[in-house]
Amino acid sequence: MREPVLKTSKVLQIAFIVSDVQAAAEKYARLFGIETPRVSMSDGYEKAQTVFMGKPSPARCKMAFIDLDNIQLEFIEPDENDSDWKRSLEEKGDSLHHIAFEVKGMKKQIESLEEDGAQCIQKGEYPGGRYAFMDTADEYMVKFELLEND
Amino acid sequence: MREPVLKTSKVLQIAFIVSDVQAAAEKYARLFGIETPRVSMSDGYEKAQTVFMGKPSPARCKMAFIDLDNIQLEFIEPDENDSDWKRSLEEKGDSLHHIAFEVKGMKKQIESLEEDGAQCIQKGEYPGGRYAFMDTADEYMVKFELLEND
Repeated sequence: MREPVLKTSKVLQIAFIVSDVQAAAEKYARLFGIETPRVSMSDGYEKAQTVFMGKPSPARCKMAFIDLDNIQLEFIEPDENDSDWKRSLEEKGDSLHHIAFEVKGMKKQIESLEEDGAQCIQKGEYPGGRYAFMDTADEYMVKFELLEND
Repeated sequence: MREPVLKTSKVLQIAFIVSDVQAAAEKYARLFGIETPRVSMSDGYEKAQTVFMGKPSPARCKMAFIDLDNIQLEFIEPDENDSDWKRSLEEKGDSLHHIAFEVKGMKKQIESLEEDGAQCIQKGEYPGGRYAFMDTADEYMVKFELLEND
């Protein structure tokens, strides 16, 4: 076997950027006949350490999650600060934003994808782990998120 | 719990429409450090019973699949006949086409989504099951495929 560019075997999430996370969560909850999931807010800079296009960013988002048997659907509503979430919403409206791969060793995985030609657009911490959005859309037809849970 | 519009709890596939299935399969195989999957051809009308926009269609496609731990990635190259595959490629180029939900009772699930406002764009049979593409992009931000395996 060849050395992988991205060491993963699991897609953890399919994520959508939306202008109204409550409405999107309600719509999908109705689709599946389940209770509407709770909407939460991402952490501020002090905890999230958000970096957008190489610079610290105060951007936050509202989020809701629906757990299916084998994968999680995520709905993200950007706040007013510049971020990949916000730019995606401005450019494409409500849309599928990324698929999230489970990784271990975030730094190395980002570097490996960068050597492959991708760019790290945004990254940050969340309780229990960290994420990175990689600009893989030209090469792989969709933006990848790397998710490392401790 | 409410009655679901779509009775499912599993996303089986994330599928991409591509102009060159061999190239896409090679690219993703390299990404994951795995062997390039075999490319196969969908059945002709006699077996596939393909229906596109309500009419029988001779359309076929080349396909390749990559199995991750919890989900399958699918790459689809349309043939020259009119189909949802072909129209998607013409309109959007290489791109993420649909997410596929596991269902039981295809006819009832199609009807339920139709009552919810979606349209069945294309459907057909494959060895061991059947699929239907539902035009859910406006309502749910992505096209759904229903997959029923016997």
